[in-house]
Amino acid sequence: MKKPARSVVQGLAALFFVLLLTACAGVQTTSDPLPSWTNGDPKHRIVNFVSRVTDSSSTSFVPANERIATFDNDGTLWSEKPTYFQLLFILERVKVMADDHPEWSDTQPFKAVIEDDWTTLKAAGVHGLADLAMATQADITTQEFQSTVKGWAENSRHPVTGKLYTEMVFQPMLELIDYLKANDFKVFIVSGGGLEFMRPWTEAVYGIPPDQVVGSSFETRYEVRDGKPVLVQESKMHFLNDKGDKPVAINRFIGQRPILAAGNSDGDFEMLEWTTAGDGERLGLLVHHTDASREWAYDRESSEGRLNRGLDEAGNKGWLLIDMARDWQVIYPGDSGE
Amino acid sequence: MKKPARSVVQGLAALFFVLLLTACAGVQTTSDPLPSWTNGDPKHRIVNFVSRVTDSSSTSFVPANERIATFDNDGTLWSEKPTYFQLLFILERVKVMADDHPEWSDTQPFKAVIEDDWTTLKAAGVHGLADLAMATQADITTQEFQSTVKGWAENSRHPVTGKLYTEMVFQPMLELIDYLKANDFKVFIVSGGGLEFMRPWTEAVYGIPPDQVVGSSFETRYEVRDGKPVLVQESKMHFLNDKGDKPVAINRFIGQRPILAAGNSDGDFEMLEWTTAGDGERLGLLVHHTDASREWAYDRESSEGRLNRGLDEAGNKGWLLIDMARDWQVIYPGDSGE
Repeated sequence: MKKPARSVVQGLAALFFVLLLTACAGVQTTSDPLPSWTNGDPKHRIVNFVSRVTDSSSTSFVPANERIATFDNDGTLWSEKPTYFQLLFILERVKVMADDHPEWSDTQPFKAVIEDDWTTLKAAGVHGLADLAMATQADITTQEFQSTVKGWAENSRHPVTGKLYTEMVFQPMLELIDYLKANDFKVFIVSGGGLEFMRPWTEAVYGIPPDQVVGSSFETRYEVRDGKPVLVQESKMHFLNDKGDKPVAINRFIGQRPILAAGNSDGDFEMLEWTTAGDGERLGLLVHHTDASREWAYDRESSEGRLNRGLDEAGNKGWLLIDMARDWQVIYPGDSGE
Repeated sequence: MKKPARSVVQGLAALFFVLLLTACAGVQTTSDPLPSWTNGDPKHRIVNFVSRVTDSSSTSFVPANERIATFDNDGTLWSEKPTYFQLLFILERVKVMADDHPEWSDTQPFKAVIEDDWTTLKAAGVHGLADLAMATQADITTQEFQSTVKGWAENSRHPVTGKLYTEMVFQPMLELIDYLKANDFKVFIVSGGGLEFMRPWTEAVYGIPPDQVVGSSFETRYEVRDGKPVLVQESKMHFLNDKGDKPVAINRFIGQRPILAAGNSDGDFEMLEWTTAGDGERLGLLVHHTDASREWAYDRESSEGRLNRGLDEAGNKGWLLIDMARDWQVIYPGDSGE
C-alpha cells in the first residue's frame, strides 16, 4: 500500500506546486484587452506596440520606469460638444452666482451667459471665457472649489444626452488606459483643462491619481485664516497647458519623455511631436471625431478640438489616426456594441 | 495503511496551503526597518505613526492612495554645507564657462566666483545667485543640462569630505523613505532646489522617480531645431519653491495633502503646517543639525537651512524634532555606527 499512497502524495504535491506558481505569477489570460476596439489596423498597432516595448527580448524593450503615457482629456478621453464640459460647468456657475452679482445683468460676457446668448458668448473668445472662469473660481479656497466640482460631477447632466458628464467618457480609451497600466505604464492626463476642475473626479472615472493629472492652473496663495491654513485661487492664470506648452508641462511635471501620447486636436500636436521624436519605439495617437450618429463629427473647422495640421501631418509622422466610427464599437460605457 | 497515508496527504495539503498563503502574502519579517535610528522617542513615534495609518482596524487608518509623504531635500535628505550643493555646482559651472566669457573677469558676482571671493559672493545675496544660475543654465536645452548635471553627480567631490555629493545623503532618511514605500506611501521630494538639477540623480540615489520630484524651475520654451523638437531653458524663473509656495506646489503637482512631511528649515515651515493641519493622523518632522563632529551643527543663525521659527513652534505644533547627534547612529551610507 505504500507505493499508491506515495504517488497520491506526489500527485498532490505536484498539484499544489502548480497552484502555488499559478497563484503567485498571476493567471495569464488570453482574453482581448481592448474589446470595444474593432479588430483592425489601429488596434493591432497598439497591441503590437505594447507587446514589443514590454518584451525584454525585443530590441524595442523599454524598462517599466520609462513607460510613460500621456493622454489629452477633452475630445480624447471624453466628449467636448456642444462645447468644452469645463465651459458648461463655468456657465452653470455663473447662473448660480448671478443672484449675488446684479452687476452681471448688464456686463458682458456675463449677460450673454444669463440670457443664453451663444452668438455673443462665442464672439467673446478666449478672453471672455477667461473672465468667466476667473469670476467663478477666484478668491475661493481649493477645498471649496473641489467640493463644488464634485457636486457638479455627481449631479449635472449634459444638455444633449442627458447623461452625467462623467458617463460621457470613451469606453475604448478606458480599456486602453487599463491595458497600459496592466503593462506597467504610468499613465498621465495632460490637458488644457484646469487642474482643480479635473482632479476631483479623474481617479474615480479613469483610475488616474491626482498627481498624474497635469493641466492649466491659476495663481494660488497660501494663507492662514483663523489659525487654519488654506490655499486660495487668485484671478490670474499661472499656466495655460496647450500646444507647445504641453511638452513644457510634461517636462516640468513628469520629467521624462512619454513613449505614447494620445490627443485629438492641434492643441496636442506638439505633445505628439515631442513624444514621437524620442529614440526607440514610440506611439502617437489622434482620435478623429467621425461619428455624427453616436457622438459628433468635426475636425478642421471646429471651435472645439480643431484638427487641421494633425490631419495633414499624421501620415508623415507615422501617427495613428483613430477613426471613431470605424475603430470604436462602443463609445460610452454601458452602450451596446454595433 | 489507508489512514496513515491519508493523514500524510492531509498534512502535506495543509503544508502546501500554508506555503501558498505565505508566498502570496509576502513573508512578514520582524527585522528593524530603521536600523540607523537610535531606539528612542523619534523612531518610536515614526513606527507608531506608520503602524496606525496602515492598520485597517485603526481609527487612524489611511487608504493607500492617500498615503502621501513629502521630503525637502537640502539639509533634510543630504547635507547643505559649506553651502547648498546646487550652488557649488553653479560655481563649478561658472569656472568651466569662464574661458568663453572674458567679460566675467570684471563683472560681479562672476569675478567673485572666479577669485573664490566668498565675502563678495555672500554679499551678492539671492539676486547675485540667481544671476549666476541663469548665466549657467539659460539658453541650454533640458537634455544638455541634464547630461551636465549627470556628469557633475558622477564625478564632482565635496570640498570638505572628498565624497561624491550623492554620497552625502542621510542613511536614516534613505531607510525612512524605503520604510514608507514598503508601507504603500507615495514619496515625493518637495525642494527649493531646481527640478532639472535634481531629477538626473534622484531616482538612483533615493529611489524616487522624476515625476515625484517637485522643485524650482525656469521658464522653458518648446522649439523645433532642424526638424528636431527641443525644450530650451530661459533666463527667467518660473517658480521658486520655498516657504508658502511649497504647499502651493504640493497642491499643483501632487493634488493631495500629505499625511507626513519632513524638512529642516523655516523654508519648510508652511509645508509642515499645511500637512499637519489636515484631518486625522499626521506627522511633521524637522531635522535639527546638531552634530558638528559627524556633519555640521547650525540652526537659528545659519544662512543655509535657517531653523528659527521651527525650533520655537515645533513643540506646540506637535512636530517631531530630530536631534541628529542623538537620534541618528549613522549619517552617511557606509559610515560605521557609533
